[in-house]
Amino acid sequence: MGTLVSSEVDVLISEVGPRDGLQSVKSIMLTEDKFAWIDALYAAGVREIEAASFVPAKLLPQMADAELVVKHAVTLPGLIVMALVPNLKGAEAAIRAGVHKVTIPVSASAAHSLANVRKTREEMVKEVEKIATFRNEQAPNVKIEAGIATAFGCTLQGLVLEDDVIRLAAEVIRAGADQSGLSDTTGYANPAQIKRLFRRLQAEIGSKAGAAHLHNTRGLGLANCLAAFEVGVHSFDSSLGGLGGCPYAPGASGNVVTEDLVFMFEAMGIKTGIDLEKLFEARKPLQKGLPRETIYGMLPEAGLPKGFFSSTNQARSVHER
Amino acid sequence: MGTLVSSEVDVLISEVGPRDGLQSVKSIMLTEDKFAWIDALYAAGVREIEAASFVPAKLLPQMADAELVVKHAVTLPGLIVMALVPNLKGAEAAIRAGVHKVTIPVSASAAHSLANVRKTREEMVKEVEKIATFRNEQAPNVKIEAGIATAFGCTLQGLVLEDDVIRLAAEVIRAGADQSGLSDTTGYANPAQIKRLFRRLQAEIGSKAGAAHLHNTRGLGLANCLAAFEVGVHSFDSSLGGLGGCPYAPGASGNVVTEDLVFMFEAMGIKTGIDLEKLFEARKPLQKGLPRETIYGMLPEAGLPKGFFSSTNQARSVHER
Repeated sequence: MGTLVSSEVDVLISEVGPRDGLQSVKSIMLTEDKFAWIDALYAAGVREIEAASFVPAKLLPQMADAELVVKHAVTLPGLIVMALVPNLKGAEAAIRAGVHKVTIPVSASAAHSLANVRKTREEMVKEVEKIATFRNEQAPNVKIEAGIATAFGCTLQGLVLEDDVIRLAAEVIRAGADQSGLSDTTGYANPAQIKRLFRRLQAEIGSKAGAAHLHNTRGLGLANCLAAFEVGVHSFDSSLGGLGGCPYAPGASGNVVTEDLVFMFEAMGIKTGIDLEKLFEARKPLQKGLPRETIYGMLPEAGLPKGFFSSTNQARSVHER
Repeated sequence: MGTLVSSEVDVLISEVGPRDGLQSVKSIMLTEDKFAWIDALYAAGVREIEAASFVPAKLLPQMADAELVVKHAVTLPGLIVMALVPNLKGAEAAIRAGVHKVTIPVSASAAHSLANVRKTREEMVKEVEKIATFRNEQAPNVKIEAGIATAFGCTLQGLVLEDDVIRLAAEVIRAGADQSGLSDTTGYANPAQIKRLFRRLQAEIGSKAGAAHLHNTRGLGLANCLAAFEVGVHSFDSSLGGLGGCPYAPGASGNVVTEDLVFMFEAMGIKTGIDLEKLFEARKPLQKGLPRETIYGMLPEAGLPKGFFSSTNQARSVHER
């Protein structure tokens, strides 16, 4: 989930691999490998990372070292470190560890909400309120994002009413969240729907409209990101190597691939602040830490176009003159 | 390459697999398997197929049965059958076989032109003129499309000047082609460039601006198709199972995948006239005819979303009331 975009970039790419990616695979990455991966992402210019999920280790053993990972990540200057928290207890632990931002998943699908967090949608809005109260009292600098999951459809209940999505986003903002974005948890979204729903979100909550968290399950990930950008979304979640999400089958990865997404924007002249060559380097510690997992990405396979012009690097060379 | 869009669909999907796909793989599909594949595409609602390439069999043994394939395809009512022809000799053979349309590849990259057809760009424009003269005299109903290849960049020379692309498109129209589209032969295009260049093409040649032939080499295939659609392109080339194009590596397929492209449009409410379930069925004869080739497609792996609403089928059910 994203934050406000700094003046040096046109879009913010929020890397969710260390949380969304790692919790979706069976292998457990060693803590020191997570450090190396996060360092490499940072070296490539990534400035927001969803580093961990604060949930009981017996539910997600991949996240047992969440506190250590956050404590490492916050040593990197200028990096916004965020963590997913499903409830107040998780938020307390994340804030104690030092995160700059917590993100709370709130499902627009009633069925998915119960399956994912064992709470109704209404109970999750209450949870956002509790977390906001705690934040206001104990850690006023920490930001709260409440992303609306299954905003574009649900594998359990099928259709998700757009009115439900927008109403829920308004409710989490009223409950105290600083931002609310939309997540295509199931890879159901299409570009027309993306434009329609983000426009409604902006009309409803204005500048508190947050990131697009989109999946590539059916191949539309980048087209959907483009559509979101075209209606004014400037913050995008993605995962290095496409790790995580809902991988139904080999090749059918879940999360939008960070490398491909950065390439699309940079090629279009839209600055991400990320160096693609260094981003490729960040695949090495990922692969080293998860030797048995397949990582994806069309651009890494095909390579950069001959004579490729990076908007970010061009901007840098101008600065260095 | 595309033709004008009929009143029953919003976009025309032109299936290039039997030509572009088959000529890119080493295996040779049996003629009877080609018939079965084309029949299945037709049964799914595909109404334009690039069925073959008329080139010497010693250069492309996969296309040795071009005449037989065309003669079969033209028996399917309402199907526009096209063939790629690199020169007058090929055009004569294709027209003799009964095609409705020939498509001539004209490279905007000087280096690619020599490598691909052993002719300069200027010589290719002359070839278009010869073919148009022949067509005017012998087969006035046959349409001629001259697509501009490497329009967005070239693996041999890198940058391709946009002025060269537009000038060449104007020249092939002056030489007698009915339409000229743009091809991202190398998978270099980005959505901003797509919009810019198709707008220039439309300004230059008006309604003779033809299809978008886009590749997914770097994952931007569907985003680029969306960008083209947004500036008024209504004819798209694609390949079932993503067969063909420039497969650098496993997963990094070349041509845009027909299944995924049709899904994007149908989900957006844009009618293609194609039934997705039946399109999935058309993968079976393709796979049977090429048992050793990998075929791609995110949608076929993940399946249709629960409660998916097909614009084409909805329209059909309205007609049937």
